[in-house]
Amino acid sequence: LAESVRVVFQPEGKTAFVLPGSVVLEAAARAGIVVETPCGGRGTCGKCRVVVRDGCSEPTEAERQLLSADELAAGQRLACQTRLLADTVVVVPESSRFGEQRILTEGEGGPRELAPAVRKRVLRPEAAALERPVADSDRVRAALADVDDLRLELAAARQLPLALGAGDGTVTAVVHDRDIIAFEPGDTAARLHGVAFDVGTTTVVASLLDLRTGHEVAVASRTNPQVAFGDDVVSRISHATEGGLAELQQAVVGCLNALLREIEERSGIPRDQIYEATVVGNTTMSHLLLGLEPEQLARIPFAPVVREGLTMPAAELGLEVHERGRLHVLPNIAGFVGSDTVGVILATGLLGRGEPTLAVDIGTNGEMVMALDGRLVACSTAAGPAFEGARIRHGMRAAPGAIEQVRLGEDVAISVVGNARPRGICGSALIDTVAELLRAGILDPSGRLLAPDELPAELPDGLRRRVVPGEGGYDFVVVGAEESATGEPIALTQRDIRQVQLAKGAIRAGIEILKKRLGLADSDLAAILLAGGFGNFIRRSNAVRIGLLPPVEHERIRFVGNAALAGAKMALASVEDRRLAEEVSRRVEYLELGSLGEFAAEFAEAMLFPEN
Amino acid sequence: LAESVRVVFQPEGKTAFVLPGSVVLEAAARAGIVVETPCGGRGTCGKCRVVVRDGCSEPTEAERQLLSADELAAGQRLACQTRLLADTVVVVPESSRFGEQRILTEGEGGPRELAPAVRKRVLRPEAAALERPVADSDRVRAALADVDDLRLELAAARQLPLALGAGDGTVTAVVHDRDIIAFEPGDTAARLHGVAFDVGTTTVVASLLDLRTGHEVAVASRTNPQVAFGDDVVSRISHATEGGLAELQQAVVGCLNALLREIEERSGIPRDQIYEATVVGNTTMSHLLLGLEPEQLARIPFAPVVREGLTMPAAELGLEVHERGRLHVLPNIAGFVGSDTVGVILATGLLGRGEPTLAVDIGTNGEMVMALDGRLVACSTAAGPAFEGARIRHGMRAAPGAIEQVRLGEDVAISVVGNARPRGICGSALIDTVAELLRAGILDPSGRLLAPDELPAELPDGLRRRVVPGEGGYDFVVVGAEESATGEPIALTQRDIRQVQLAKGAIRAGIEILKKRLGLADSDLAAILLAGGFGNFIRRSNAVRIGLLPPVEHERIRFVGNAALAGAKMALASVEDRRLAEEVSRRVEYLELGSLGEFAAEFAEAMLFPEN
Repeated sequence: LAESVRVVFQPEGKTAFVLPGSVVLEAAARAGIVVETPCGGRGTCGKCRVVVRDGCSEPTEAERQLLSADELAAGQRLACQTRLLADTVVVVPESSRFGEQRILTEGEGGPRELAPAVRKRVLRPEAAALERPVADSDRVRAALADVDDLRLELAAARQLPLALGAGDGTVTAVVHDRDIIAFEPGDTAARLHGVAFDVGTTTVVASLLDLRTGHEVAVASRTNPQVAFGDDVVSRISHATEGGLAELQQAVVGCLNALLREIEERSGIPRDQIYEATVVGNTTMSHLLLGLEPEQLARIPFAPVVREGLTMPAAELGLEVHERGRLHVLPNIAGFVGSDTVGVILATGLLGRGEPTLAVDIGTNGEMVMALDGRLVACSTAAGPAFEGARIRHGMRAAPGAIEQVRLGEDVAISVVGNARPRGICGSALIDTVAELLRAGILDPSGRLLAPDELPAELPDGLRRRVVPGEGGYDFVVVGAEESATGEPIALTQRDIRQVQLAKGAIRAGIEILKKRLGLADSDLAAILLAGGFGNFIRRSNAVRIGLLPPVEHERIRFVGNAALAGAKMALASVEDRRLAEEVSRRVEYLELGSLGEFAAEFAEAMLFPEN
Repeated sequence: LAESVRVVFQPEGKTAFVLPGSVVLEAAARAGIVVETPCGGRGTCGKCRVVVRDGCSEPTEAERQLLSADELAAGQRLACQTRLLADTVVVVPESSRFGEQRILTEGEGGPRELAPAVRKRVLRPEAAALERPVADSDRVRAALADVDDLRLELAAARQLPLALGAGDGTVTAVVHDRDIIAFEPGDTAARLHGVAFDVGTTTVVASLLDLRTGHEVAVASRTNPQVAFGDDVVSRISHATEGGLAELQQAVVGCLNALLREIEERSGIPRDQIYEATVVGNTTMSHLLLGLEPEQLARIPFAPVVREGLTMPAAELGLEVHERGRLHVLPNIAGFVGSDTVGVILATGLLGRGEPTLAVDIGTNGEMVMALDGRLVACSTAAGPAFEGARIRHGMRAAPGAIEQVRLGEDVAISVVGNARPRGICGSALIDTVAELLRAGILDPSGRLLAPDELPAELPDGLRRRVVPGEGGYDFVVVGAEESATGEPIALTQRDIRQVQLAKGAIRAGIEILKKRLGLADSDLAAILLAGGFGNFIRRSNAVRIGLLPPVEHERIRFVGNAALAGAKMALASVEDRRLAEEVSRRVEYLELGSLGEFAAEFAEAMLFPEN
C-alpha cells in the first residue's frame, strides 16, 4: 500500500488524505472546499491561488508566468498546478473559493448585489403628541415612508409598545418582502442571518449566512433521518403513500431543527436571528418536507404537485428560526428534476453561458442539464445507488475506512478516508478501480473480468494474483484479508462491475440524449460541470475512461462542489436570484427519458466501456 | 298604566311592544329592524314601504300621494306615517331595510359592486401528458392565467392532488386578495360565506353574509364575556396591564367562536365555508382581540398601538372559520374612536355627504363624527354607563321587565320590554322620563326635582302624588310598589337626574365642539344620525328636549341601527369599501377633548337642561 499524504486546509482546519502527487485542487475537493477554476485547471487564469509552503512540487512554468517571484517566495501557488508530496498545510483564501465568490459576484448577468428578501431598517420615530396622539403603527410608518405598501403583521404590531418604549426611541423594523415581520428595540441592524438547506435523499446540509455580507458563518450536515424509511426516493414515496407522510415530514423537519441547533452552538448566533431559510432538494424531498402528497411522483406521468417556489412562515412547518421568519423552497423543474438542479443552474450561471455546457449531479439519480445560448434542457436517470456504495458487495459511503482512491501500478495503491484500515470501497474508488482495470487489460469493454489465463502477458504479478474466482465470474481483490479492517478481503466482483455499468450507462445515456436534442458533438462541449458531493471526488480521467462522461479533455471537466447548496445560498442572498430561479424552473425543457423511444438503445450502448 | 300594542315583524318573527299611536318606524327600530328613511321620516321619499293590514291608522295624505290605490288595498304603507293602534303584524320587505340595501347599493360614491376580498374560481385544468408532465400547480395556474401574480399557499398546494383527482376534473380555487388559500374538489362556487363581527364592550354581534349575494343569512349576539373583568374599557385595560391580556383575548375569541357555532347551527352553513371575518369594535376591544398591549390607551396621549386595519389568517387568533380563512380588523381612528366609528362612517356614507351631518353612537362612551364636504371631525366623550342602566338606582339594560318608554299625561303611561311586570328603567325610558318631567314642570332646567310645594298648580294629581321625599332631594315614582315585579317602587332619584345630566352633557359638549370646529350652527345640521343599539330606542323629541341632541326638527334625526356592524358587512362584501375604511381612518380629524381648554365650559353648560 502506498502511503497517503495528509493535507490540512486552513482556515477551517479540514483534513484530506490523498495519494502523493495529487494536485492541491483535488485534495481541496476531497476536503469539501471548492476552488475557483474558470480556466478548467489549465493553469492559465491564475484564479486558484493558495498558499503552500512545503511538502509540494516545484513551481510549474504556468505558475512562474502567473505569479511574481515575491508571491512565489511568500508561498503563493496555483491549486491546479501544485502537487502534494508530503504532509502539509494549505491556506485557501476566500477570493479563490467557488461558493463565496459566486454568491457575491458571479450570478448570471454579471455581478449581483446582496439583496436578501429579509432586511432591516433602523428607525427613530417621532414621539406622539397630545394634540395629535399618533398610533405607534403610524409613527413607524412615517419613519418608513420611503417604502410603499408594506403590510404590518400582527406579531410585529404586538411588539411595537415594547420596542418603541425601550432605550433611546430607536427601533429596528424587520421586513420580509413586503411584510413587516418584527420590531426590535434599539439598533439591531448588525444581526441579520439566513440559513440555506440542501435536503438530499441521504444527506442534509445547512449553511448559515450573514446576510449583511453574504459570508458563510457556519455549516453543518447530517444524515437525512428519512433513510430509516428506505434509502431511495421510491421507498420514501411508498411509505408516504401508506400513511407515513406526516412521519417523513416530521423526520426531516426534526433534522433541519437539529442542524439549526448545531449551528447555533457552533456559531453562537441565536436561531431567532435567522429570519429566513431557503431549501433546495430533489422533487420528492421537497414534497415530503412540505407535506405534499408525493404519490403521483411515482406513477406516470410523474407530475409534481407543485413546481413553483413556495414561501411561507417557517413556523408553518415548525422550523425553529425567528418566530415570524420565512421559509422559501425553491422551484422544481419536474418530478425527477428538483430545486437542487435549479440551484446548480443558478450557481453555475448556466443560463448565461453561450458555449455548450453540461452540468451533471450524480447521486442515486443522475440529473443533468445542457445549456446552449440560454436554452436549457434537462433530464434525470435512475442511476441507482451503486456510486453511493449500495448493491456493491464491499461498497460503502465515503466514511472513515472507505477506500476512496485506487491506482494500479506494479501493485494496487489505495487511499483511505481518515487514513484508517480499509473497510470497503466508496464510489470514487469504484470508478478508479474499473478505469484502472480497463487500462491494465483485466476488464474487457463488454464489462467482463478476464480469467487468469486471458490476462495480458505483461501484467505485473502484483495485479495478476488479485484476480481470483468468484460468483458468476472472477473477482479482483483490492485489499487482502490481512490488510483489511474486517479480516475479510475487499474485492470487486463481476456483479459489482455490472452495477457500475448500469449506473454509468444510465447517466451517459442521458447525456447523449441531451447532446442529440441540442445537436451537439462531444467536441462541442466547452465544459462539463460536476456538481454534488460525489462529483467532487471523481477522478476526471477515470470518469471519462469508464465512459461515465463523454471523451473530452479532462481540463474541460470542472468540479463545482455543492452547487445546489450554493444556489440555495444565492436565493437567500438575493431576491433577484430567487426570481431567476423561478425563471429557470419555468424555462428548462424537461425530457422524460421513459417516454423517448431512443432511450433504450442509448442505454444499451452506454453500458459498454470505451475501447481505450 | 296604558296598554302596549304587540307588533310582530315578519319575516323574522320579532316582536315589539309599543305605546298605541307609535309609528311603525319606531316599533321596527325597537325590534332591531332598521327601515330605510332617506327623507328623514317626512313621508316624502316613499322608501320605507311595509305591509300592514290592520290595527293601524288610516293612510295619511303623504301615503295617498306615494302609494297607488292598488298598493294601499294590498296593505302597503309607509313605516314613517302609519301609526299602530292595536296588536298586528308588519312585513318589512328587504328593499326597505337599511343594512341590506346599503351593502349592495349605497356606498359612498354611488352603487357598489359586490367584490369581497375572498372569491372563488371554478377551473377545469387540462390533464398532464407524459411528454410534458405538468405539475398540478401549473395546470391550475394555466386555468387561472387571467389573474396575475397570485401566491399559492402551502395549505392549498397540499389539497391539489385530492381536489384535482376527484370527480370530473373540475376544481374550485378559493382566492383571498392575492393568495390562493384553498382548492376544493368540484364546483363549489355556490358556497361562499363571510362573517362580520361588531365587538362591543358589552355586546358582541355576528352577522353571516352570503358573499355571492351580499345578503345576511343569520345573526347572533352574546354578551361580551370580558364583562366579568369590568364593565367599561378602563377596567379591561387595567386587567390587561396586570397580566390579564391573554385571558381577555381568549375570552373574546371564545365568544366569537360561540357565535360562529350558534350561526352554524341556525343556518346549517358549516363554519369551514366561512372564508373571511371582518371585525369592528372600539379601539380597546380591537386591541384586546388582537392581543395588542392596551396600556397606553389609558394614559396620555392615549395613542393606539395600531391604527391601520390588519389582515391575518383567522387561525392566528384561533377563530374557527375555514382553516386558511382570513380575519380583517378594520382600522381605528384614535385611542377612543375605534373601527366601530369607521363602520358607522362607511355605512352612513358620511364621507360623501355634502350637507353638514352628525353621526352619534351613544354607549358607555359617546363617539361622534361631523361631516362637511368630505371633511370629517370626530371626538369621543366618556358619557358613562347611565344610559345602559348603571349608576341609576333602578336602572337596567333593555331586558325583559325593563320600562322602555314613559309618557306623562293625567298619570304615567309606560311600556315594558316583553310586556312583563316592570323591574327597572332602561336608558330610553330614562330620557323619556326626564323629558316628560321637564315638560310637566316637575324638573327645573338646573336639574332639580321640585318640592311638592313648588310644583305647578295645574299638575294632575296622578303625577303630583308621585313626587316623594328621597335622599338628597325628591324622587319621582314611576311605578308603585304594588305594580312592580319586585314589590318595591321604581323611582327616579335626584341623584339619577344628575347622572343623566353628566351623560347627556358630555355627549352634547362633544357635539358643540364639533359644530364650532366646523363653524356650524344648529340650523346648519342637515341630519343627525343615531347609531348603535341604544340610539334606536331613543325618542327623538325627548332626546332634544333634555338637550342630549341639539334643537333640530326631529325629522332630521334618523336612526341608522347598528351602523358599525353594517360597516363591517360592507368591508366584508367589498374590497373597495375596505379601502375606503382605511382612507376614512386616515382622514378623520380627531379632537382629543381633554386637550381642549374650551371643553370644561362646554360641558358645564351642556349639563343644564334647555329652558323649553
